[in-house]
Amino acid sequence: MTDSNLLIVGSIGLDTIETQSDKVERVLGGAAVYSSCAAANLTHSAIVGVVGDDFPAEHETMLKNKNIDLTCMQKKPGKTFFWHGRYRDDMNERDTLDTQLGVFGEFKPEIPASHANIPYLFLANIHPQLQLDVLDAMQGKPFVAADSMNLWIDTTPDLLKQVIRRVDVLFVNDEEAKMITGQSSVLRAADAIIAMGPSVAVIKKGDAGAMLISRDDVFATPAIPLREVKDPTGAGDTFAGGMMGYIARQNDRSFETMKQAAVLGSVMASFTVEDFSLNRLANVSPDDVRERIERLRCLTVFKDIEI
Amino acid sequence: MTDSNLLIVGSIGLDTIETQSDKVERVLGGAAVYSSCAAANLTHSAIVGVVGDDFPAEHETMLKNKNIDLTCMQKKPGKTFFWHGRYRDDMNERDTLDTQLGVFGEFKPEIPASHANIPYLFLANIHPQLQLDVLDAMQGKPFVAADSMNLWIDTTPDLLKQVIRRVDVLFVNDEEAKMITGQSSVLRAADAIIAMGPSVAVIKKGDAGAMLISRDDVFATPAIPLREVKDPTGAGDTFAGGMMGYIARQNDRSFETMKQAAVLGSVMASFTVEDFSLNRLANVSPDDVRERIERLRCLTVFKDIEI
Repeated sequence: MTDSNLLIVGSIGLDTIETQSDKVERVLGGAAVYSSCAAANLTHSAIVGVVGDDFPAEHETMLKNKNIDLTCMQKKPGKTFFWHGRYRDDMNERDTLDTQLGVFGEFKPEIPASHANIPYLFLANIHPQLQLDVLDAMQGKPFVAADSMNLWIDTTPDLLKQVIRRVDVLFVNDEEAKMITGQSSVLRAADAIIAMGPSVAVIKKGDAGAMLISRDDVFATPAIPLREVKDPTGAGDTFAGGMMGYIARQNDRSFETMKQAAVLGSVMASFTVEDFSLNRLANVSPDDVRERIERLRCLTVFKDIEI
Repeated sequence: MTDSNLLIVGSIGLDTIETQSDKVERVLGGAAVYSSCAAANLTHSAIVGVVGDDFPAEHETMLKNKNIDLTCMQKKPGKTFFWHGRYRDDMNERDTLDTQLGVFGEFKPEIPASHANIPYLFLANIHPQLQLDVLDAMQGKPFVAADSMNLWIDTTPDLLKQVIRRVDVLFVNDEEAKMITGQSSVLRAADAIIAMGPSVAVIKKGDAGAMLISRDDVFATPAIPLREVKDPTGAGDTFAGGMMGYIARQNDRSFETMKQAAVLGSVMASFTVEDFSLNRLANVSPDDVRERIERLRCLTVFKDIEI
């Protein structure tokens, strides 16, 4: 058995990233890496993923040092998933210059019996069929969150809808929410998502933060304003990982806990974007986290208004 | 003398507006109209503007019924300013199909002695030279807020900078803030704006709300999530009018008051976008306002987090 209480399925990759002022090559990345590192500050998680035989040992060491369980990380002959992206002046926009799937192209998640009863599951953005395979492989009834992307909305909408029907929390950006549902307002899109199955839709709004929407409640968390954003890569995955890490830690699925969890998501994402790769996120102390929670709380507090 | 304590300078217009599902023709609009109607729920304001002899009497009646002082609204032979716009599927984007300046093209704001000592001044988006003329015409030392647009950043940047140096609060969207200052992050852009003169930069983020930034403080107010946005026209002007209306009402320029004021701005803007023209905003009750303030407060409140 494992003592992990959060299972994270997704990509592990090497990224070459260009911004307007900087460039880094073949640094550690991937949705499962960002989300598990965010969760590592809160709970004990296990990654389900695959790397090639070129995956640097130092990355494995770093993840293990953060108590991330790599039992379900497969190592296959071949190349690790590689992504090369370039951010525009407006860092909300980026262009993909190259993608090499490598061993990720043939990835088949395997969930050993030791990990099939983990109570919290985060399906990061991968092919919806793989997300379904993982759902089928789980033996317990985990609390499930899933992320996706416009690629799957366009190419495999039916599979994606099957996933959505089986998850408790769906992460989407506002454009994706509208695409999936055909609704024109974010709230109506969230209503439609909730009608499909999830109890909560999490609408990611990039540097404007995120919204949680359930049948009866709405919560908004701003992103923490930063003087310098060095690299937004992984911010969404970090948000999801921080959020799921907190829910797993608290072992509570109430909307009140999800609000706090979303705050943790915003806080963790604010570390990720301050440096390339996991450079900042992997070196966060509990005091750093507490300070940013407080900063985020103060950001929206106002005194009573008499009208 | 006037009993107005907020002077608002800007356009008064007739708008033809198309959305994906609706169209209205020659309805009341203009920055000074939206902002004064937002402020009318909070304080007594006066409009400085111009209309043509085609301006419907019913609009004048409506504004007067809201206790808006029209002493400084000029009536000239000719056509009232006309704008025709069409919103895209994503209502954050719109195309201008027609603009006819009419009498607004020759507009020269005139501030009679009775109005030259009004303590709060909002310069809505008009040519920066006119904004400077109004500043020169004021006899007291009003607390001044100004709005602008990318057109003036492109065509008359030096005049615009002269305006910025003389105002206390600058309203801009995030893209404009970056354009004006050449900075790549919103916070650094705000720092640069504050270095030019204003004590507070208000960064408008459309349906993601707004941020107030001073030398020492940051405040974020989300927009109130709505199931249906019918017409976003005037939302920014409404936000500014609601904010300035509250500051004038409280007669207090502290950051604490500005935070509350920004909340009022968000609340008023949420009414504007629910219907075309002033249809909803002009019919808001104090209870409506209180209910939305509470809704906005609840939107971001979370319980203490132990890490």
